[in-house]
Amino acid sequence: MEKIAESNEYSNDLKGKILGMMFYEPSTRTRLSFETSMKRLGGSCIGFVGIDASSVSKGENLADTSKMLESYSDAIVLRHSLEGVSKFISDIVDVPVINAGDGAGQHPTQTLLDLYTMKKELGKLKDFTVSLVGDLKYGRTVHSLAYALALFGINMNFVSPKELSMPDEILHDLEKNNISFNQTNDIKDILNNSDVLYVTRIQKERFPDVEEYSKIKGAYLIDKKLIEGKNLIVMHPLPRVDEISHDIDNTKYNTYFKQAFNGVPVRMAILNTLIKNKF
Amino acid sequence: MEKIAESNEYSNDLKGKILGMMFYEPSTRTRLSFETSMKRLGGSCIGFVGIDASSVSKGENLADTSKMLESYSDAIVLRHSLEGVSKFISDIVDVPVINAGDGAGQHPTQTLLDLYTMKKELGKLKDFTVSLVGDLKYGRTVHSLAYALALFGINMNFVSPKELSMPDEILHDLEKNNISFNQTNDIKDILNNSDVLYVTRIQKERFPDVEEYSKIKGAYLIDKKLIEGKNLIVMHPLPRVDEISHDIDNTKYNTYFKQAFNGVPVRMAILNTLIKNKF
Amino acid sequence: MEKIAESNEYSNDLKGKILGMMFYEPSTRTRLSFETSMKRLGGSCIGFVGIDASSVSKGENLADTSKMLESYSDAIVLRHSLEGVSKFISDIVDVPVINAGDGAGQHPTQTLLDLYTMKKELGKLKDFTVSLVGDLKYGRTVHSLAYALALFGINMNFVSPKELSMPDEILHDLEKNNISFNQTNDIKDILNNSDVLYVTRIQKERFPDVEEYSKIKGAYLIDKKLIEGKNLIVMHPLPRVDEISHDIDNTKYNTYFKQAFNGVPVRMAILNTLIKNKF
Repeated sequence: MEKIAESNEYSNDLKGKILGMMFYEPSTRTRLSFETSMKRLGGSCIGFVGIDASSVSKGENLADTSKMLESYSDAIVLRHSLEGVSKFISDIVDVPVINAGDGAGQHPTQTLLDLYTMKKELGKLKDFTVSLVGDLKYGRTVHSLAYALALFGINMNFVSPKELSMPDEILHDLEKNNISFNQTNDIKDILNNSDVLYVTRIQKERFPDVEEYSKIKGAYLIDKKLIEGKNLIVMHPLPRVDEISHDIDNTKYNTYFKQAFNGVPVRMAILNTLIKNKF
Repeated sequence: MEKIAESNEYSNDLKGKILGMMFYEPSTRTRLSFETSMKRLGGSCIGFVGIDASSVSKGENLADTSKMLESYSDAIVLRHSLEGVSKFISDIVDVPVINAGDGAGQHPTQTLLDLYTMKKELGKLKDFTVSLVGDLKYGRTVHSLAYALALFGINMNFVSPKELSMPDEILHDLEKNNISFNQTNDIKDILNNSDVLYVTRIQKERFPDVEEYSKIKGAYLIDKKLIEGKNLIVMHPLPRVDEISHDIDNTKYNTYFKQAFNGVPVRMAILNTLIKNKF
Repeated sequence: MEKIAESNEYSNDLKGKILGMMFYEPSTRTRLSFETSMKRLGGSCIGFVGIDASSVSKGENLADTSKMLESYSDAIVLRHSLEGVSKFISDIVDVPVINAGDGAGQHPTQTLLDLYTMKKELGKLKDFTVSLVGDLKYGRTVHSLAYALALFGINMNFVSPKELSMPDEILHDLEKNNISFNQTNDIKDILNNSDVLYVTRIQKERFPDVEEYSKIKGAYLIDKKLIEGKNLIVMHPLPRVDEISHDIDNTKYNTYFKQAFNGVPVRMAILNTLIKNKF
């Protein structure tokens, strides 16, 4: 898949196949990497982004829209602002449904590309420590990733302002499964005990006042000075705003651009598994 | 075409060919089924939806925009809010122009898939009765369908609130051709004399006051209780809002989801006829 | 390329290849002709138009968005409202970057298709005179074209209201290279000394008051009466609003529709050169 993703080979595996895309929330990276994945494999995409130009604006319900996409395509990719919507849709249509992010819920294909990136960069999927940094409360990416890392017995640090800490429900699940983790609001606590810094965006909207937001934003900025000399890599699901300084972009720490590229071969594998191999 | 539409086979019939899509009004079902049809046949699509991201917002007139699409594509699909626009455009460009809905005018490809669905479900295109229900005044779908059913000598019932009855012009055309039809505002009048209930949306905007709308909406709701035991099928061009109850979805009466799927093989046939066979 | 653009042949030259499209400003003609060009050669397109449905609305900067598109595609086409953006992006990504218009800067692929059209219509690219008419100050199309015509030693007339005359910087460059040109605000001055009238749109927004705009607009209207009997062709990058009368459309003077079509074979050649031949 990597060779095809790099455009050094091409594939007809999904020739004539169609991916139906229902993006009720804005997305560039996830949407375009799915499109690229489908097209690199010889397939096509149809669908919509937002709700303005669609029957949704005429009041059609999600179930009917999904039944339509089921008629027209071989698999559906869905992004929606409500948790659990993908599960609901997968129960009422017969084609595979891929969750491309459901509200503050999950983002499983992001997690698969995150795991793939760690395995590729660190050479293994065990015996290392991942520090999840930023908005751990509303960030669906870190929710999915925490569960996945737990499956591999990988240690975790959770670094966030108190208001945005990892949901209790997830912490309980980890404890129940004897996964060791630390919680802190000071990033300096974990820098010497991290193989991966997995950074996420802290959204201004989460804070009632701007001053509070500015203070917190500054405390979670990852820059060259902070990590220089440490033995770690920096990952980010992107888009970033201010949380990773551009002075890291041209250093060995920058793994986030490779991670973005890895979205293509990983999603190609997912699409091939679901559509061609009818897993 | 059906096997290809179901993705069990693929086709190169329209390889290298391009369909130009000009959707000045929102559309999901018609637009996506045309895209799927083109792509299942190995072709591609270009175009725009709405007017924001296009030269139209710079003030370009429709004729110039059409001449451009003519330069770039092998056929044009057009949806517009004004009656007669497709005819006008087809006179000034040399590629085939497909009317995908022109205001309160016509929607001929919908009609072809409706006829195909009736033929498939009832085994014939004669000796049955179709009841058209809902907004018969502004609904372009029912206008096109009424003319087409007339060609096959099929009996019709027209069921609508008085404010939304079938235009006199169409009734005169039917009379002139000796097509028998009944008009009523009470759906119960025709339930025992219908092989097909063809239901359409009644739009709130048509009524000056909300109360009037609510009353009428209730009187035209098709639910399981209303049709149980009758020997008929229920069709709808979709999207629906409230006019067909979800309790019909899992019954034998539901033909609207099959009808939506049939949009693909029928539009594939149209595209092949126009582009490959240069009909 | 022309035979393929006319859909009489097809090509697999760019099979499996992907063109990334970043259109921060509205565009129909340029965008759709690039899409058509890519698809006629067997390739695909991904990307976005405007900024609403993209990560840009989450605050991502242009450099990160470009790095993403670089990961997903074999070349990038960029339209942006700021001069020099394409150059900046081409310095930070490793795939070819095509400038599809940068603010009041340049529009080089338009210029290539303009030159191609002149060569095809006049049989040569020397010994003729091109009169550039309209908004020469903000029109990026005429900026790029003036530099290109200069390379071939072609004479130019610049016809515009004083407020919208060709920037001094460009005039100096032409003088330095001994290119002869005339400047006037009266189109009648140059009609007998023009082989090509290259007309551009004068935008209402450029004028503080509507009356001033109306006066000027009238003075630069090209109609049949004005050019009848002259030995010249009329070109326009399109879209036009009022500046070329429709009474020219069906005359031998109309070269703007052919010019629009030429966008496809010329952009096909550009894409093939950059992606297939890795120029």
